[in-house]
Amino acid sequence: MENAHIVTHEEVMFFDTDCGGVVHNLAYLRMVETCRTKLGTAMGFDVREMGETMRFPVVLRTEADYKQPAKLADELEIHGRLEEWGKVRFWCAFEVRRREDQALLLKCRQQLALVQMPEGKVLRLGDQPLLPS
Amino acid sequence: MENAHIVTHEEVMFFDTDCGGVVHNLAYLRMVETCRTKLGTAMGFDVREMGETMRFPVVLRTEADYKQPAKLADELEIHGRLEEWGKVRFWCAFEVRRREDQALLLKCRQQLALVQMPEGKVLRLGDQPLLPS
Amino acid sequence: MENAHIVTHEEVMFFDTDCGGVVHNLAYLRMVETCRTKLGTAMGFDVREMGETMRFPVVLRTEADYKQPAKLADELEIHGRLEEWGKVRFWCAFEVRRREDQALLLKCRQQLALVQMPEGKVLRLGDQPLLPS
Amino acid sequence: MENAHIVTHEEVMFFDTDCGGVVHNLAYLRMVETCRTKLGTAMGFDVREMGETMRFPVVLRTEADYKQPAKLADELEIHGRLEEWGKVRFWCAFEVRRREDQALLLKCRQQLALVQMPEGKVLRLGDQPLLPS
Repeated sequence: MENAHIVTHEEVMFFDTDCGGVVHNLAYLRMVETCRTKLGTAMGFDVREMGETMRFPVVLRTEADYKQPAKLADELEIHGRLEEWGKVRFWCAFEVRRREDQALLLKCRQQLALVQMPEGKVLRLGDQPLLPS
Repeated sequence: MENAHIVTHEEVMFFDTDCGGVVHNLAYLRMVETCRTKLGTAMGFDVREMGETMRFPVVLRTEADYKQPAKLADELEIHGRLEEWGKVRFWCAFEVRRREDQALLLKCRQQLALVQMPEGKVLRLGDQPLLPS
Repeated sequence: MENAHIVTHEEVMFFDTDCGGVVHNLAYLRMVETCRTKLGTAMGFDVREMGETMRFPVVLRTEADYKQPAKLADELEIHGRLEEWGKVRFWCAFEVRRREDQALLLKCRQQLALVQMPEGKVLRLGDQPLLPS
Repeated sequence: MENAHIVTHEEVMFFDTDCGGVVHNLAYLRMVETCRTKLGTAMGFDVREMGETMRFPVVLRTEADYKQPAKLADELEIHGRLEEWGKVRFWCAFEVRRREDQALLLKCRQQLALVQMPEGKVLRLGDQPLLPS
């Protein structure tokens, strides 16, 4: 379980870039969001169910290191994996790489908890799988 | 009521532009969203209440004509007004202008209805004010 | 050429939805952007080249009719095709459908021109293919 | 100079929220972008000039701690200040607070450099003001 790993693919669109000619820092984080959602699915989180039970993974902390810029039409790979799994919090780690040469563009870590909305109550994580006990 | 009119202000940010050096077509529509929400408030829609009653104005149709491009750091005015008020549908009209020379950058019209979520039921509009009868 | 047709796929992410519980009207248009870029590629536009020659397709008009809402985790198909090809302007047409039941969620048409940036000069379209003559 | 401080204001819009009923984590970072741009202006960066000289402040690292969620129609204050000023890198720090009760919603730090595009060359920072020497 702790080795859950996933790769998502994105092609840089006009709306990802800014007038500096490269991808805007926020656009990479949107790509990370998509990767994390699919990583969650791979770990057993049912996204559709979340919309009904109102139990959502919530980001507590984001750390992002921007290494190199991507450009329009670049094909990107977003690698996501579960890094650490605690009693109420877990960490995911991401790398964005340019597909062509595997250049590392972004490293990112996010700490999350599972929260019952709308109360905002933090739920205990189970041992295995990633569902509240 | 039919004359409700509002002006919101935006400064073009990096994330509004793309690598063509001008504002991306989607960014203007986000500015229109903000203007329309504030127009709604001026017309008596209480946005905070919407989040609780789950009665939302829903866009049925958008028409947008892009006239001239805006650039990084341009100061923009978004003019919004109620154009037409029917039994279940209403139209709002918007113009985005560059503040400096009042150049018209975008003309936009949107048709909306008031919908009860999560059922998606379209509500009848009252005569005056803009609340369901 | 006039029959160029493409289908792109999107899964509804949290960032596509709003507190009304359904996909925000702007999110569909971002999906249309992606579809149109890939339609352009299929028609012979080289996006990477655009970033270098600064010749970009520019949206002149958008018409969007919102038919039914999509929800978190819905799998969507965006169908795009070239609808009309003129001397300096062309129209593309899009439909967003829910994959599961092919329900029509959005119909959209966009009129575009090919523009030389940063001058903003509108270029004549060639007969075939879609490159300036 | 090191005490440059600015406050920007945002009202939570529908597009800032997601189906969890609260503001999406990316939306706060867009608000931070706007605050940082205006902080830059207060420190002497001329944004319009950047678009011409192609010298841009580039985010190298983002750290964001999400403390409490904001909801639709909340009025937010984004406090930004210059935290550290080095030879080639500088740090900015931000807090997002709910205006009504000053509740702290987000703490964020960003490390930046000044970069000459399109080469991507990192420029030396001057002593005072924040322009390359």
